[in-house]
Parts: sequence; C-alpha cells; structure tokens
Amino acid sequence: MDRLPGFRDFYPEPLPQPDLWSADARQYIFDKWRGMARRYGFREYDGPPLEALELFTAKSGEEIVGQLYNFTDKGGREVSLRPEMTPTLARMVVAYERGYKKPFKWFALPQLFRYERQQKGRLREHFQFNADIIGEKDSAADAELIALLIDTLRSLGLTEKDFVIRLSSRNAWQDFFRGHNGDAAQEYAFYQIVDKLERETPEQSDEKLKRAGLSLREVSTFIEQGKPTAELETILQNLAARGLSDYVKIDYHVIRGLAYYTGVVFEAFDRKGEFRAIAGGGRYDNLVKLISGGKVDLPALGFGMGDVVLLELLKARAVLPVFDAGLDAFCLIEDEALRSESLRLIHDLRGTGLVVDYPLTAAKSDKQFKRAQELKAKHTIKLERNPDGEMLAKVKSLKTRQESAVPIAEAAARLHESKG
Amino acid sequence: MDRLPGFRDFYPEPLPQPDLWSADARQYIFDKWRGMARRYGFREYDGPPLEALELFTAKSGEEIVGQLYNFTDKGGREVSLRPEMTPTLARMVVAYERGYKKPFKWFALPQLFRYERQQKGRLREHFQFNADIIGEKDSAADAELIALLIDTLRSLGLTEKDFVIRLSSRNAWQDFFRGHNGDAAQEYAFYQIVDKLERETPEQSDEKLKRAGLSLREVSTFIEQGKPTAELETILQNLAARGLSDYVKIDYHVIRGLAYYTGVVFEAFDRKGEFRAIAGGGRYDNLVKLISGGKVDLPALGFGMGDVVLLELLKARAVLPVFDAGLDAFCLIEDEALRSESLRLIHDLRGTGLVVDYPLTAAKSDKQFKRAQELKAKHTIKLERNPDGEMLAKVKSLKTRQESAVPIAEAAARLHESKG
Repeated sequence: MDRLPGFRDFYPEPLPQPDLWSADARQYIFDKWRGMARRYGFREYDGPPLEALELFTAKSGEEIVGQLYNFTDKGGREVSLRPEMTPTLARMVVAYERGYKKPFKWFALPQLFRYERQQKGRLREHFQFNADIIGEKDSAADAELIALLIDTLRSLGLTEKDFVIRLSSRNAWQDFFRGHNGDAAQEYAFYQIVDKLERETPEQSDEKLKRAGLSLREVSTFIEQGKPTAELETILQNLAARGLSDYVKIDYHVIRGLAYYTGVVFEAFDRKGEFRAIAGGGRYDNLVKLISGGKVDLPALGFGMGDVVLLELLKARAVLPVFDAGLDAFCLIEDEALRSESLRLIHDLRGTGLVVDYPLTAAKSDKQFKRAQELKAKHTIKLERNPDGEMLAKVKSLKTRQESAVPIAEAAARLHESKG
Repeated sequence: MDRLPGFRDFYPEPLPQPDLWSADARQYIFDKWRGMARRYGFREYDGPPLEALELFTAKSGEEIVGQLYNFTDKGGREVSLRPEMTPTLARMVVAYERGYKKPFKWFALPQLFRYERQQKGRLREHFQFNADIIGEKDSAADAELIALLIDTLRSLGLTEKDFVIRLSSRNAWQDFFRGHNGDAAQEYAFYQIVDKLERETPEQSDEKLKRAGLSLREVSTFIEQGKPTAELETILQNLAARGLSDYVKIDYHVIRGLAYYTGVVFEAFDRKGEFRAIAGGGRYDNLVKLISGGKVDLPALGFGMGDVVLLELLKARAVLPVFDAGLDAFCLIEDEALRSESLRLIHDLRGTGLVVDYPLTAAKSDKQFKRAQELKAKHTIKLERNPDGEMLAKVKSLKTRQESAVPIAEAAARLHESKG
C-alpha cells in the first residue's frame, strides 16, 4: 500500500535513501521558525486543518475551488482542507479580538493543502511559517514583520549573499495606475498583469497592458526607476537602524497574486534566482472586515514561508547541519548480572535530561560497541566493580577514546560536563 | 463564519475566555512528549494526515468506515483523514525498514480524526503521542516502552498518586480462553466482551459469556486473582529495577478493543477513576506482515496518548504551569529621537536569543509601562544619555523594581544573567 501522490512521509536520519524527506530536517526548520518568532514576541496559535469551504471562497471567489482539497462531509457540509492560513487567522481574530490588546503578533506552523493536477514531484501539501501583526496601521509594523522574516532566514545560516527581500507596494502601483488614468474596475486585472511580467513574454504583457490603456514601456520604466514611496522609505530606514539594509531592496516587480493585499507587499528570493520565492506577504487591511461581514475592522499584515523551497535552498547552500540521534551516552551491558543496576543508572541519567540508549537484550561486547557507534553516541558508559567490590561507572568518549571511572552518583554530572 | 463542529482553535495565553483551547498548553504538552521520547532514544517520524482508505480498512475491516473522515477525492480515490497512526507507521516501516538497524524506536505527534456523530463537546480530532519499538520480540522492549509512558507523565508533574499503568496480556487471556475450551473462531469476540466488562451490567456480560461457553464468575475470578504470567513478571521486574514499581499493576480488565494486538497490552488511568484512559498500547506482532502482504515480518509494539484527556487531568491536578509571553525585556522608547538606537539595541538583544518586544509607535510612558506589565515582561530596558553624553541602557526588574544602568554592550549579558 502506497501513500497518496503529492504527500510526504518524513523519516528519521540517517536516511536510507537520499531522496526521502527527513523528519529531523523538518523539525530543525520548525525549531528555527518557532524560536525566532518567539524572540520577536510573536505568540503561537493554530486552527483546524479542515474548514467550511465558504471561508476560502469568501475572499478569493469560486474560481479557487479548482485548487482546493474540498469535499462534502458525512453531515452534508461543504468543507475543505486549508490551502492557506490567513482566512483561519481572520476568522479566529474576529471571534476573540476583544480579548487581546492591540496590536498583537501571532504565528502558526500549519500544514496546507492544494489539489493541483498531479505533475511529477509536485506536492499537494506543505508546511508554512505564518507570522501576522493585527491592529497596527503604521508601517513600523511592516518593518517589524520584514525584520522577523530576515532574521528567521539568517538563523538558518543564510546571509545577505544568499537571499534578498524584494519590497514593493500596492499603493505605489495604485498611484501609478490612477496617474495613468487607469479604469478603477480594471485595477486588480492590472495587478495580475504586473504579477505575471516575469513569467510572460514582453509581447504578451504589452498586448494585455495596451488593452488596459497602458504600455509595457511605461510599466517597465516605473519598475526600473524603483523610486520608494514615503512609506517604503520609512520601512527601509527602520530596517537600516537594525543593521538589515543589505537584506532588502525596492523591486516593483513584486505585487503578489492574491486579491486581498492592500499596501506594502514583499517576497524573499535567493540571490542567484535559482528557486521560486522563499516567502511572501504584505498588508491585508480589509480582510478581517470582509470575513466578519463588516463587524470587525482591523488592519493586518503577515507573511508565509513554506518548507519545501526553503529546504531546497538550505541544501543547495550547504547550511543544513548533520542530523544524528543526539545520544549523550550508550550504556553497555556486558555482564547480564548487572542489567538491573544498569537499568537504574540509565533511568537516573535520563532523569537529568540526558539522551541515553542501551541494548534491550543480551549481546556480545563488540556488537554493543558497534551499535553505540551507529547511533553516534558521544559516550559509552558501563558499570563495573573495582577490586574493592565498589560499583563504578566507566565513561568513555567515542571521540577522544579517553576513558575514566567515576562513582555512579557522579556519572550524570560527568556526561553533562562534556555536553557543554 | 464558524469553525466546523468538533474541531478546535488554539489561542495564545492569556485566554480571553477560560473555555478556549490554549495554544501554549498544547505546545507545553508537545514539548514534554518530544523531550522524553528523545531522552529515551526515540526518533521522530511523520506521515500524511490523508491516506488511502484501504490502509485503515485492511486491518480493521469495513465496519470502521462509519467512524472515518473519509471521502472520494477529485482523482476518484477513496481516501480518509487518519484515525490512528499505527497503519501509517506500518506502511512506512514496510517501505524502508531495511535501511534501519533493528530494533528501532520511533515516535510521532500526529493529529488524528474521527467522524463521530456530533454530541455536545465531542471532538472529531485530537493530537496523539505515538511511540513504537520495531523489530524486538523480547519483553525488554515492552518494559522500555512502558517506562517511557510513565516518565512522560511524570515529566508533566503527575506522580504515582495521580496515575497507574494497568498491565495485562492477550496471551494470558488466550491461555484462559483455550484452557476453558473456548472456540478459536470466537476468540476475538470473547476479547470484546472482556473489553466491555466495566461498561456493561454483570447480567449483560454473563449472558454474552455464556453464549461463548463461559461464565462471568470464571472470568471475574481470573481477573481478581490477577496472577502475572512469566512475561508480565519479567516486565514488572524490569520496571522495578528502574524504581517504577509504584506506577504499574496487573489488571486483566484491560484487553484493548483493537483487533491487531497480540501480546502485552496496557492502559494508563488516573487513580481516582475520573477520566477515560490517558494512554493505551501493546504488542501488534502481526500488523507489519499484514500491511506488507506478507513481505515483511517484524514484531512491533507501541502506545498512543491523546492530548484531550491528558489536559483535563493536568488541569484537575493543578500541575499545568502559568503561561505568559515569556518576554525577557520590553524596551521602552520614551524619547522618539532614540527610536533608531533602540531598534538596534532590540535587534542585538534578540540576536543573543532574548525574547524582546517594544512599542511599534510613539506612546506615552505610562502606557508603555502598562504594556510591559500586560505582557508580563521580566524587565524593562531603555536607552538614556548620562550627563557626559554617553548612551546607557537602564535595566529594571519588574519583580524587584530594582533598576541599574549598564553600558549598551553589557545589556544582553545583564538580561541573560537574571534569566538563569
């Protein structure tokens, strides 16, 4: 029996085949995401992976249904696995925002699902780091959010040589469009042409733009000039104060495909341009109002960073650590008469926070030692009586091969020492 | 728009209403689960939340479909949200077991789903700590697994006064059944009668048992005697060697409902008997063979511990910590002329691992201080020039209200000090 196409199994390291997905790499990324979000004062939330279908069609229209993992449940409800987190966040905010002092900063690490026509290697699920700030109109919030994005990627070992945030603004594009007498009804259609500029031929783009009363030359000139708006200038200064200028540049190519963005938008890209966007986000000041049917009106902004492109980039830049079992000690039981005492020792060592393993059943000494090496234990430990009959713990470093005997009561402290 | 019935939203603490689910409590439990599993040398894995329906019907029969969150996907596949993790684990083990040295110890923290007819407060999803040992027949593995279960509950602040592991054995019941001339074809039906003993009236049980050629008196006597088999005796001794005797007792009431258990079975219960089982598990030596169509034959055992009953118990025994934002410092910006320098300081402090927040926009001093208190910051920190024009950081403990000025370069070290 196979797993469903487009879904992933995550196996422990060391992986028996290099093309398998690593549960350790996934957890490493989760820890970095969660760790940096917390340092920034973001608080974790989560919602259900399954929601009412209308939560997703409300803001994106019916055409999105083709990409959804939706179905009718046994109670006759139209439901869908979540394709993104923002609608769930908006729903949760609407329900209890009065209980939280504004602005508040929340994050989540949801698994998201899309039913895309199956192409080779194309996934139908991924995990995404979502960080959002609710209840703050000022662009200081945009800067704080972008700083979190930058520092998260830095905490994974990437530098300004590896990635850059392309900063843009729907407001800048709106001013451009209206300044060129664009038809307000065509505004979102115009954004979508801009969104596709880098994926379509100049001829295709120019033709579409002409129909909207504009030309590719005007649009290209605006992008090339890349003159920051006053709002973007403020954000750049805020990031400069933090020492993060090298990680960000104005790039009006970025406009984001989703309909609900209202102001500053941005995407993180690898500098070499080898991969799809690492992350993307922006302001969506009207979404909470839309989801609440007009009852709650709160400005908001956020970004999402998926695990798949990120992992590809971390591998390509060789900044992923080597994952092993992290065993502090493997307890050798060479004398079965000492098994009970060994179990007690193992239990006490684990009780102090050490990662300890041992042979479950009787085995030859060399086989036990081989197992300790396979598990990449830092030490072996074994009980032995000295000539006076006193029980001692022999601790051996598998790196230096140095061995010393300590009273049992001191074994944990000895192992903790060489841990640091 | 509401969330679907039976699903949970998880909100950050402090909760605006006590009946909401806490994302912080959830993460606290996850950390304890993951932490103890790792200390025991268990390695994390995960599979997809959605699987082919037949993966679940293969071992449990078609009758389980009524409880599944199953549907037909857009590709015409019969699929289901996972109701339990063991079939996925077995599938994953079958695919790559040759790449892992036996025995191996794996764990996962999946979200699981059941479509149960909606009753008030009845959930359709929960999270479960799953720990399994693959490839070891010896009962030393059963003892190791039960020790992990006990130590996980202990790490959450529960003691031998709060819970006990009820240890039993399908083998013991099999010997009993065959010793009483039970009809082999009726064996699983007999286990199900035993499984329901504590939930049905004596008359109901007796009638069912009589039809199977037995009596309630015989069964009750066997349970009351509670004589451990040789295998259970070995496990009790192993746990005693670890100092865990007070956490376990023989109780043949436990037999587990699922069809696939083959040997030792056990359940964790609160001592007062107020809650449903906290955890349950046992040996399933034939399941890997079944899932692989006979190609792979590996003994296996595991347990599952859900988050819902566990959280109820932790609350009832008052052993949950108080959750706050864990802010090491809230940076006051009372002079807007110092905002840039403050942003730099905040960024540097966060860079050392400290959790730091600050007012995104200009605000009055007392409002800023109130915010620091709301967020339960351990310290406030603010920049100030001394009379010589040198910039200093004033660090104030919100607990002791003691304040001191340090050079900026020493601010992080000062905050880390009072962290420990």
